[in-house]
Amino acid sequence: MGGDTPPDVLFSAVLKLHKELGDAASLTIFATPEIITSLKLSPSIRHVHAEEVITMEEDPLFAVRRKQNASMSRGIHSLCDHSLDAFVSVGNTGALLANAMLSLPKLPGIERPALLTLMPTMKHEMAVLDVGANISPKAEDFVQFAAMGIAYQKCLGISTPTVGLLNIGAEAKKGTPELKKAYQLLSGQEGFIGNVEGRDAFKGDVDVLVTDGFTGNVFLKTAEGIATVILDQLERTAALEPIRAKLHYTEYPGAILCGVEGIVIKCHGDATATTLYHGMKGAYALVKNQFLTKIRLQLQ
Amino acid sequence: MGGDTPPDVLFSAVLKLHKELGDAASLTIFATPEIITSLKLSPSIRHVHAEEVITMEEDPLFAVRRKQNASMSRGIHSLCDHSLDAFVSVGNTGALLANAMLSLPKLPGIERPALLTLMPTMKHEMAVLDVGANISPKAEDFVQFAAMGIAYQKCLGISTPTVGLLNIGAEAKKGTPELKKAYQLLSGQEGFIGNVEGRDAFKGDVDVLVTDGFTGNVFLKTAEGIATVILDQLERTAALEPIRAKLHYTEYPGAILCGVEGIVIKCHGDATATTLYHGMKGAYALVKNQFLTKIRLQLQ
Repeated sequence: MGGDTPPDVLFSAVLKLHKELGDAASLTIFATPEIITSLKLSPSIRHVHAEEVITMEEDPLFAVRRKQNASMSRGIHSLCDHSLDAFVSVGNTGALLANAMLSLPKLPGIERPALLTLMPTMKHEMAVLDVGANISPKAEDFVQFAAMGIAYQKCLGISTPTVGLLNIGAEAKKGTPELKKAYQLLSGQEGFIGNVEGRDAFKGDVDVLVTDGFTGNVFLKTAEGIATVILDQLERTAALEPIRAKLHYTEYPGAILCGVEGIVIKCHGDATATTLYHGMKGAYALVKNQFLTKIRLQLQ
Repeated sequence: MGGDTPPDVLFSAVLKLHKELGDAASLTIFATPEIITSLKLSPSIRHVHAEEVITMEEDPLFAVRRKQNASMSRGIHSLCDHSLDAFVSVGNTGALLANAMLSLPKLPGIERPALLTLMPTMKHEMAVLDVGANISPKAEDFVQFAAMGIAYQKCLGISTPTVGLLNIGAEAKKGTPELKKAYQLLSGQEGFIGNVEGRDAFKGDVDVLVTDGFTGNVFLKTAEGIATVILDQLERTAALEPIRAKLHYTEYPGAILCGVEGIVIKCHGDATATTLYHGMKGAYALVKNQFLTKIRLQLQ
């Protein structure tokens, strides 16, 4: 609910994943009674009736406080009482963050949960965090971001992930005072390879790119923006399909809120069923690979 | 001097522009005596002997203080005594900025000079500033950046340029405290259309994108990085050439240091002759179109 694509279209993603995973995962949808009735659910897909929907236009904090029966709020509550392991949403990002931060305990050792997203590089994908939860994190927070990023890449099968700090030059003295301090704190830590420039990040030598939520958000959206420019120009070229798949964010699992007791995934508001499918599949992989446990281990 | 490409290779750009412009512009090269001798200069291209070269590896401030006879330093001095209108360099960026800031007076009304660069969009090119001169500018500086960006686009023939503030959302309350203040100061000013996200910047509705030097640098390098990823993947596709031309920074005039009494252009260190040619041609256009006067007018 609450995204740009109608819920019944998005539901095809649920059916696809259900068929694929069978009994390996139990799927639950949170939607208004009208939507649930219209979907003709099979008994093996659980559902929770939500009386309200938080829209894209609503003020996040206000909406969350007022709409505790919204589909999104009910989903987060289900993470709280452990009836869910992971929750995927295509709704209002601010409201999802506010909902999660107000309801879910923070993981031990985490001061500020962060949004993580995967991005393409010349080699395998890179985890970037924070992409929007903290505008001005402290130097210490960057160390925690690095730990969560490492935990994430370990879930994806990378045994010794490398960590880079997004900066405007490779030298230790580059950037804001907070970044210089973060560099010092990260030095000698697991996997740290130093400062990385936006251009070099895409070479694929960095598995975890650590940054503040403002810069990370600009980084992410700039990459999407320029990719869109290129793909639009190349629109009707057949050779393009593999690249399109690699670049288009519908193939990525969405942004993961890291650092709270539960797996919360935010897909784009204009998510298609394909996007949602990848979001859910990503959530499943994180549960299966014990993402939260891995974060805890990183922070010991 | 001081770039990755040998000076004699770069010199072909000087010859090309000289042939193109004829008497419309007087070209001067600053190089060591050995290089100047090796080039077999025609009498119509002036030259200045410089005894030293500032390298990429040198500490900018230290190099500038110690090497006032370097080719770069001599070029900036020639801007100071008005024997040049514009100076183009492929050398050490930090040293070029330091040299210019130490020697050239700031334009009236400019507190902090900024680096401006052109970037591709779905429509025509967008001027982005600051892309690296000021890590943490004040809100007031953003207004001056806007004025310089407008002046620049007017030089390129856009009569009523639009101005956007790079931010992580469209709403006025988004971003850091300094950005919120900048939004207020820019509101109602010439051409201001509000906050712009990295993704939307490339749609082409913003002629001048205003940002701090840290974010702007990340923005620029991220765009270059993702473009390189895509172009590398598409390497051998014939249909690519027009797009490659549009995206590859060799076709852009380089970064322009705005706000000092003189036109200073920084090309990439790995600039080819083509890059340098475009850098010089861009410099010529700015002189011809009275960029400095336009900045002064903007700030009245």
